[in-house]
Amino acid sequence: MGKYELIGRYLSEFVSQEVRKTGLKKVVIGLSGGLDSAVVAVLAHRTFGDDLLCIKMPSHYSSQSSLDDADELCGAFGIRSETHSIEPMLRAYETSDMPPLRVGNLSARLRMATLFDISAREGALVLGTSNKSELMLGYGTLYGDLASAINPIGDLYKTEVFELARFLGVPASIIDKPPSADLWAGQSDEVEIGYPYEDLDRVLKRYVEARHTCEEMINDGENSHLVDMVTTRIYKNQFKRKMPVIAKLTSRTVNHDFNYPRDITL
Amino acid sequence: MGKYELIGRYLSEFVSQEVRKTGLKKVVIGLSGGLDSAVVAVLAHRTFGDDLLCIKMPSHYSSQSSLDDADELCGAFGIRSETHSIEPMLRAYETSDMPPLRVGNLSARLRMATLFDISAREGALVLGTSNKSELMLGYGTLYGDLASAINPIGDLYKTEVFELARFLGVPASIIDKPPSADLWAGQSDEVEIGYPYEDLDRVLKRYVEARHTCEEMINDGENSHLVDMVTTRIYKNQFKRKMPVIAKLTSRTVNHDFNYPRDITL
Repeated sequence: MGKYELIGRYLSEFVSQEVRKTGLKKVVIGLSGGLDSAVVAVLAHRTFGDDLLCIKMPSHYSSQSSLDDADELCGAFGIRSETHSIEPMLRAYETSDMPPLRVGNLSARLRMATLFDISAREGALVLGTSNKSELMLGYGTLYGDLASAINPIGDLYKTEVFELARFLGVPASIIDKPPSADLWAGQSDEVEIGYPYEDLDRVLKRYVEARHTCEEMINDGENSHLVDMVTTRIYKNQFKRKMPVIAKLTSRTVNHDFNYPRDITL
Repeated sequence: MGKYELIGRYLSEFVSQEVRKTGLKKVVIGLSGGLDSAVVAVLAHRTFGDDLLCIKMPSHYSSQSSLDDADELCGAFGIRSETHSIEPMLRAYETSDMPPLRVGNLSARLRMATLFDISAREGALVLGTSNKSELMLGYGTLYGDLASAINPIGDLYKTEVFELARFLGVPASIIDKPPSADLWAGQSDEVEIGYPYEDLDRVLKRYVEARHTCEEMINDGENSHLVDMVTTRIYKNQFKRKMPVIAKLTSRTVNHDFNYPRDITL
């Protein structure tokens, strides 16, 4: 069995088991038309079939091609989907002087609110679609796209999500386009972060997995600005990977010493 | 120094230090007119003065008396505040067939999105207002009112928040009314949960702090339905106290073995 066949089977089985533990039987995914949500959708479709519902949540800032790509994916795999535009909510709030970053974060949170509402309507769990590169670099909106119940791809770097997508047969239109959060026209991950994912992932893996120091990496030829940027982002964005901090007063404080796994049972 | 004077000083100092660590100097709080946000506001006002901004976020389901209570608090302490109604966003989304629980959770998430957007506008951190009784019972909306950067009162039971409120001089109108999430007209925490906070907190403290077993509590006279309900809720709602679960694939997975404090620095 090839590496990505094995990973695909493991991730489908993982999601299936995690969902079963909760007593629920269905899942929902926010489908953007991008790579990450496409991979999670195909993985989930293998296990859940018609108990998977994908939700497209465009705004007036989304590109039509993203919606088309999402539709192509659903058509190719026979995945059920619904569209719930966030445009009415976003227009009800946004003002002309809001910088794009604030509009982007607000959009991500309105999508979260929509997706979790639909999950309640369906009696379903929300699957997350943040990859490890995004999680490590803090390239995502806290309580927005970073929010979910179960994240099957949170331990796959972006370059690995590409490989998995190829193995799973995700349409070329989705694999071949430049990665984008699609929060405003022409947004590009790699332009915004400043480096291609190939470079980001190589440095991330060296630092996080192989525990190379910054000095070691720079000494054997990594760009020092890249190394600084990546490591600084890892530390600066640790808050996006943790629950709110609680002032300790008792013998057993939530997430200090009252700290059980998510799925503990009585 | 009395117990609540000491707690009040400790919590103000805690918030001050946690905010300073981030490099920011301001805080925002969502002010509902209820007890918890009133206590956090008064604590924060002691340290931050005019660098505290309270945000009132009513909807068409909020009671006028809650808004009046919030105004009375701000007037009494000289706390800066703004009003940002979530009504336009909520009306843009809600349909006549949405059950109150879904409308309530959606409202909490729209308030979160609003509050975090204003925190970005202000360069401020969001202070949380969930008490330990709510956190333990899972009586709150994940990614809604449970979302924050720093929560000063997450280790105080509701009955202790009342005591602290009395010490801090929170207006009687806020202390004397029945606790309510105010998500729909006439909502009452104690009616919804089924028991007064006095009973809930006694059983919570015995189970969580003193580690009494259910059997011990029932044997010495606790209502068995109350004990069952409280302990079941603690376990069933553990997911609201944890980050999304990630399928492990590498040597260092977010929140499995890549698991540092929120405020770690390079």
